[in-house]
Amino acid sequence: MVVKIDDVAKVAGVSKTTVSRVLNNRGYLSEKTIKKVHDAIDYLNYQPNAVARQLYKKETKLVGLIFPTVDNPFFGELVAELEKRLFDAGFKVLIGNSMNDPEKEETYLKELISNQVDGLIVGAQNIGIDEYHNANLPVVAIDRVMNEDIPVISSDNYMGGKLATELLINSGAKHIINTDGPRNLETPAHRRRDAYEDVMKDHGLDPHTCLIDFNWDMDQKAKAVQEIFTEYPEVDGIFATNDIDAALIWQTATKLGYKIPDDLKIVGYDGSNTTRMLLPELTTIQQPVEEMATAAVKTLIQRIDGKKTDLEQTIPVKVWQGQSI
Amino acid sequence: MVVKIDDVAKVAGVSKTTVSRVLNNRGYLSEKTIKKVHDAIDYLNYQPNAVARQLYKKETKLVGLIFPTVDNPFFGELVAELEKRLFDAGFKVLIGNSMNDPEKEETYLKELISNQVDGLIVGAQNIGIDEYHNANLPVVAIDRVMNEDIPVISSDNYMGGKLATELLINSGAKHIINTDGPRNLETPAHRRRDAYEDVMKDHGLDPHTCLIDFNWDMDQKAKAVQEIFTEYPEVDGIFATNDIDAALIWQTATKLGYKIPDDLKIVGYDGSNTTRMLLPELTTIQQPVEEMATAAVKTLIQRIDGKKTDLEQTIPVKVWQGQSI
Repeated sequence: MVVKIDDVAKVAGVSKTTVSRVLNNRGYLSEKTIKKVHDAIDYLNYQPNAVARQLYKKETKLVGLIFPTVDNPFFGELVAELEKRLFDAGFKVLIGNSMNDPEKEETYLKELISNQVDGLIVGAQNIGIDEYHNANLPVVAIDRVMNEDIPVISSDNYMGGKLATELLINSGAKHIINTDGPRNLETPAHRRRDAYEDVMKDHGLDPHTCLIDFNWDMDQKAKAVQEIFTEYPEVDGIFATNDIDAALIWQTATKLGYKIPDDLKIVGYDGSNTTRMLLPELTTIQQPVEEMATAAVKTLIQRIDGKKTDLEQTIPVKVWQGQSI
Repeated sequence: MVVKIDDVAKVAGVSKTTVSRVLNNRGYLSEKTIKKVHDAIDYLNYQPNAVARQLYKKETKLVGLIFPTVDNPFFGELVAELEKRLFDAGFKVLIGNSMNDPEKEETYLKELISNQVDGLIVGAQNIGIDEYHNANLPVVAIDRVMNEDIPVISSDNYMGGKLATELLINSGAKHIINTDGPRNLETPAHRRRDAYEDVMKDHGLDPHTCLIDFNWDMDQKAKAVQEIFTEYPEVDGIFATNDIDAALIWQTATKLGYKIPDDLKIVGYDGSNTTRMLLPELTTIQQPVEEMATAAVKTLIQRIDGKKTDLEQTIPVKVWQGQSI
């Protein structure tokens, strides 16, 4: 049996309008009336219908998250940390995995706006989504440049790229290759590559970046990794832009007879819980996932409350010392 | 500027009621009128308000997922696969990570019911949540026994446990330990342990199960793993009930001087994408995540449509051949 507002009114001995006023905290109400209604709600275990409630209040207490996929250790951890903080702040989370599919991202965005989410946190990797500009909705981006009005939270990508490249050079590598996603995607993550190029040049070394698109399937990625070894047989160091690429590089190199780290040194990027648990031997740049989640949720709530916020927040990274350099 | 139903009515040259009838496909309407309204909607890029629309239709096209945490390679992959299929079927996904917290699960459940989700898919690991019995809502469980009315989708846990134990015995292990979560949790995953005990006894070997709770933090888990080696110094094989435990056991054993697989053989359980990418050396029982997601979404939609469904669906597992046995 579903308990309705009429039942609450009957048990409390007041009108439906009074119950609805108590629920929405509107109009003058005596303490006695408020107590009677709350007692009836407790007695009947009444759960007010959120859809109906939304029509009074403007807020839905829903936040949408659009990320490539939770089937990736970094995004899985990030989404889990965001969800934890949003839950504590009283929000429920609608999730969309938009990977590999700008159309899916656009559909999500339209539907989330139509469902009247109070705000969005976005880290998807598609380009040219116009709806964000017209969304008229509080949005916070993680590692993605959307437009000049949308705040961006990132780890210190430049420092991460610098640390990674210096680790490789200091451990004796000279022919160091970098992997990165497509350059047309506007993300601060490209600063990892910028730093790599700067550090290489400072040391009189030639930078070479090979494309590995996050959205590719495993076969495409494996092919791209194979090509690194064909094209650059002298390679003795690789700075991979994420740990999954680094793991694939490690496996491929081992099959080709390279000993890690003697013949080839590898540094990854992300350093999620899962990666550090399953592949602790990988030296990697650890993103501050918890701090990024805290900053993103705090900034989104400030935006929802109509407050001004910083447009860019950069959070320090650290090195996870494995055995791959 | 937000486009409103009044704007559509004005551009189409019809009344608001007519626009709303077209949107909701109600009442008699001429083809000409329908076309005029659709042209105006396209021209203005009007997006009907989902909240208002919900009041006409009963369905919300929202499905809630309650799982321990997407910060785990198996649940991350499962949630991603569920989301993909629900999206294709026209549903949006509300997600709750309930790990370690029955109160959080209960809060989620109340709020999801109050938000009028059309259904729930649940794989959370808490016990004693009464709300499911009163939810009056289509629910499908993955690897969890809820009540006699709620269909359960699982991998073939008994076969998985049998395969794992036989792999260890056939590769020469005699003192084989199993890890499992608390027995009071009603999940078909315990059948892995039942199979382990049956196979051990069939071979005249003594079964011993050590408790590692999925909800424990890493320090607690590490302590429990240490105790296995203190308590059973003769251990030469371990069947871990998930790959994260298996990885932790591998690391601990290596630190203690065991060579894998010469001194100690390990078989895990789950075999997610991420585990096979980061730790391909781990021999493990691979759960059929895609098939489980397909079965769960299909069953939920049948339930939403008021159809009868199977109460238990068990999907075959396979062995991922690593180098840990």
